[in-house]
Amino acid sequence: MALATGMRVSARALLRAWAWLPGAALGRTGPAAGCGGVRRFGNQRVLVEPDPAAGIAVMKFKNPPVNSLSLELLTELVISLEKLENDKTFRGVILTSDSPGVFSAGLDLREMCGRNPAHYAEYWKAVQELWLRLYLSNMVLIAAINGASPAGGCLISLSCDYRVLADNPRYAIGLNETLLGIVAPFWFKDTLVNTIGHRAAERALQLGLLFPPAEALQVGIVDKVVPEDQVQSTALSVMGKWLAIPDHARQLTKNMMRKPTVDRLVKQRDADIKNFVSFVSRDAIQKSLQIYLEKLKQRKG
Amino acid sequence: MALATGMRVSARALLRAWAWLPGAALGRTGPAAGCGGVRRFGNQRVLVEPDPAAGIAVMKFKNPPVNSLSLELLTELVISLEKLENDKTFRGVILTSDSPGVFSAGLDLREMCGRNPAHYAEYWKAVQELWLRLYLSNMVLIAAINGASPAGGCLISLSCDYRVLADNPRYAIGLNETLLGIVAPFWFKDTLVNTIGHRAAERALQLGLLFPPAEALQVGIVDKVVPEDQVQSTALSVMGKWLAIPDHARQLTKNMMRKPTVDRLVKQRDADIKNFVSFVSRDAIQKSLQIYLEKLKQRKG
Amino acid sequence: MALATGMRVSARALLRAWAWLPGAALGRTGPAAGCGGVRRFGNQRVLVEPDPAAGIAVMKFKNPPVNSLSLELLTELVISLEKLENDKTFRGVILTSDSPGVFSAGLDLREMCGRNPAHYAEYWKAVQELWLRLYLSNMVLIAAINGASPAGGCLISLSCDYRVLADNPRYAIGLNETLLGIVAPFWFKDTLVNTIGHRAAERALQLGLLFPPAEALQVGIVDKVVPEDQVQSTALSVMGKWLAIPDHARQLTKNMMRKPTVDRLVKQRDADIKNFVSFVSRDAIQKSLQIYLEKLKQRKG
Repeated sequence: MALATGMRVSARALLRAWAWLPGAALGRTGPAAGCGGVRRFGNQRVLVEPDPAAGIAVMKFKNPPVNSLSLELLTELVISLEKLENDKTFRGVILTSDSPGVFSAGLDLREMCGRNPAHYAEYWKAVQELWLRLYLSNMVLIAAINGASPAGGCLISLSCDYRVLADNPRYAIGLNETLLGIVAPFWFKDTLVNTIGHRAAERALQLGLLFPPAEALQVGIVDKVVPEDQVQSTALSVMGKWLAIPDHARQLTKNMMRKPTVDRLVKQRDADIKNFVSFVSRDAIQKSLQIYLEKLKQRKG
Repeated sequence: MALATGMRVSARALLRAWAWLPGAALGRTGPAAGCGGVRRFGNQRVLVEPDPAAGIAVMKFKNPPVNSLSLELLTELVISLEKLENDKTFRGVILTSDSPGVFSAGLDLREMCGRNPAHYAEYWKAVQELWLRLYLSNMVLIAAINGASPAGGCLISLSCDYRVLADNPRYAIGLNETLLGIVAPFWFKDTLVNTIGHRAAERALQLGLLFPPAEALQVGIVDKVVPEDQVQSTALSVMGKWLAIPDHARQLTKNMMRKPTVDRLVKQRDADIKNFVSFVSRDAIQKSLQIYLEKLKQRKG
Repeated sequence: MALATGMRVSARALLRAWAWLPGAALGRTGPAAGCGGVRRFGNQRVLVEPDPAAGIAVMKFKNPPVNSLSLELLTELVISLEKLENDKTFRGVILTSDSPGVFSAGLDLREMCGRNPAHYAEYWKAVQELWLRLYLSNMVLIAAINGASPAGGCLISLSCDYRVLADNPRYAIGLNETLLGIVAPFWFKDTLVNTIGHRAAERALQLGLLFPPAEALQVGIVDKVVPEDQVQSTALSVMGKWLAIPDHARQLTKNMMRKPTVDRLVKQRDADIKNFVSFVSRDAIQKSLQIYLEKLKQRKG
C-alpha cells in the first residue's frame, strides 16, 4: 500500500473487494471472548493464552468485527510478541482470530482517512514494526487461519513459519490490494515471492487474487488445509514438530533465510513511510476512502 | 544468443532443432491474411485488429512461413506496440500468429549471416527493444500461442502477462538455443527463471528443452492449455479478468515485479550488443549458419 | 556448518539424526571393490570406472562404512574430478556409492573433533573446494543416489546436474544440519534454494528435513525416483540425453546459471573458513561431538 493510484477505482470496486470479508458486509460483531478457565493475559485487542509447560502461547486477534489492523491492535500485537520473545519460557506462538470467520481484514482504512500526515506516518511505522517482528521472530510462529485473510491479514500469515487454513470456501487468502486500486508495498511483495515464487506472485499481485483453500494450498500460500474444527489441533501438532528442533540452530537458519528480505526494508524504512504518507494524503485517495467507508457504514446500518 | 560457441555443433544438430518447426521443413508459406470485414491497421508483417469498444487489440504476426523475427518484423512490432501503448483506448493486447502452426520461430538467422557488424548491432538492438517494450508494457499482454514457439518465439510469450497454448503436440515451447550450439542471452534466462524458477530453468536451458503442451503447463512455462479452436476465445475471456483490475494499480504492481529484471539489461545494453556482434562475427559461427541456411533452402526446394 | 550452536543439543538428538544412516548403526563395512574386468583407476577411496568410448566415467565413493567426507576422501574426489575435467575424453561423470545403502553420510565429524585450528581450516577448505569443482564442473554430473544422502551427501547430489534416487524408503535425502544442532553454511543453503525454491528450502532447512524418495521427488530435491536396480541404467540413459547437447553451449549456459552462486562463496571464502574454525573450536561443540562419537563407537561395538 506504499505506492498508489485510485485513478480509475470506483467505490463499487472497493466495495466488491471488501465484500470478500464475511462479517464486514453483515455488520457482524465479534463474540465476547469466552475464557473457560484458561489463564489469559494480554490486553483489549489481543488475547494471549499461555501454556508455559509446553513452551507455547496462543495469541488471538480480538478487534471485532473484522480484526482490522488499527493502530491500537498493531501496538498491542507488537507488545505481546515482544513480551513472549523476551520470556525464555515461550518458544512458539500460534496466531489466530478470536472471531472465527475472519482472521484479519488487514489495514484499517479508518487510520488512513481524514487524519494528519503525522498520524499516517505513525500508523505505517507500526505496520512495518509488526512485520519486522513477525518475520524474524526467534519463536516458531504458526498461523491458525480460521477465517478470511486478505491484504494485511495475509501478510501476517505469510510472516509465520507455517500456515494452517480452515477448509471453508469463504476463507480466502491473498494480497488483494489491486482490487482496491492500490499497490502492495515492496516488502509485502517480497514476502509473497519468498513464499510462492516469482511467477505465482506476479500473477496473484496483479490480479489481487484471493485464494480459496484448495487453490491456496496448490499455489503454496498456505501449507495445510484442514476441516475447520481441526485448525487449532493441527497447529498444535505442527508446533510440536518445529519445537523438536534445537532452538538456536533453527533460529540461525531462519535468520539466514529471511534477513536479506528484512534488510531491504530496514535500509529504506523512512522512505517507505514517506511514500505511504504522500500516497494516502492525495485528494483522490482520501475521496475514494471516504466514499468507501461511507458505503460500508450504510451496509452495516 | 549473446555468448556462443558452435565448436562441436554440426549442421545436422542445427537442422534437427529447426525441424521442430512445422512449416520450416515443409516450406509452407503463410496463408494470405483473410480480412473478413474487421477493420485492420498495421503494416505488412503485423496485423492489428482493434476492438476499441472492448479496449483491446489483437496483434498477429504475419511473416511467413515461420514468423521469423526479421529486422522488419521486429521494427513493425515495436511500432505497433508503441502506437497502442500511446492510445489510451487500448488497455490490452492479444499476441498471436496469423499462420496457425507456428507462433514464431524466433530470431531470423538470415539477419545474422553474411552482414556487417553494424547490421548485427542494429539487429540485436531491435531484439532488445522488443523485449523491453513487451516485458514492461503498461497494457495487459496475453499470448495466444497457436503454434510452435521456440527460442525468440518463446521469449515473446514469456514477456506477456499470461500464456494460452493450443493443445497440439507439435506446438512445443522453450528456449532451445543450446540445440543450435548457442547460448540464450542472460535476459532470456532471467525471463525464464522469473517464470518457471531457477532449477527448472537451469535444466530447460542446458538441454534446450522444447515442452509439448502438457509438459509446458506442468513446468509453468504456459498458464493454460486449451483445444486449438479455443485459444482465441480463452485469451479473450482471460483478458476480461485482467482488465477488471484498476489499470494504474496493476501497472505499478507489474512494474514492481519486473523492473529489476529489465534494469539488468538496461545497465549493460551496449555491452550486450557488443557481445552479440563479436559472437556472430566469428568465422565458425558464420560457417555454421551458412551451412544451416543452405540445408534449409534445399529442404524447402 | 559455518555458524553454529549446540546449546540445547543433546547427544541423543545427534544420534537420532545419525541413525538415519543404515550402516552407521550396524557398523557395516563396505564390500571390497569388485573389479570384474573393468579397467579402473583412482585411489583408495574413490573408484573411477572410465568408459572412454562413451566419453563418461563412473565415480564411486568407497569410504566404508558410510562414505563420510574425510579429508582424504575429499582430496581424492577433487583430484579425480580434476583429472577427468582435464582429459577431453570425458564429458560426463556419474557419481555413486560403492556401498549401496549409503550414498554419503556427509562431513566426517572426526575431522572436526580434537584437532587443532589449522586442521579445521584445512578440512573446511577441502569441503569448499569439492563444492566449487562440482557445482561449476564443465562435465555433465549425474548423481546415482543408491543410499541415504544427508547433509554433505545431499550437497554433493545437489551440485550435480541431475539426480536419480533409488526407491527405497530408507534412502532419505536432505540438509538435516539443524537436527544436530548446527546450521548449514550459506552456500549449502544457496544450492538448496536454487534447487527447490525459497519456501521449500526455508522449511526443509529449519526442520532439517530428510525426504524419503516420494517426497524428495515431489519437492524437487531429486529429479527421478526409480527401482533400486535401475539407478545406474537410468543415470546412463539420462547422461545420453545431456551429452546430445553441444558441450560448449551447455557449459556456458550452466555457468550463466550457477556462477553468481559460486561467486558468493569465492568472495568470502576465507571468512567462511574462519567462521567454521571458530565454531568447531568452541568447547560446547567439541563436547557434543565427543559424546556423539563415543556413542557411535559403542553402538558399533
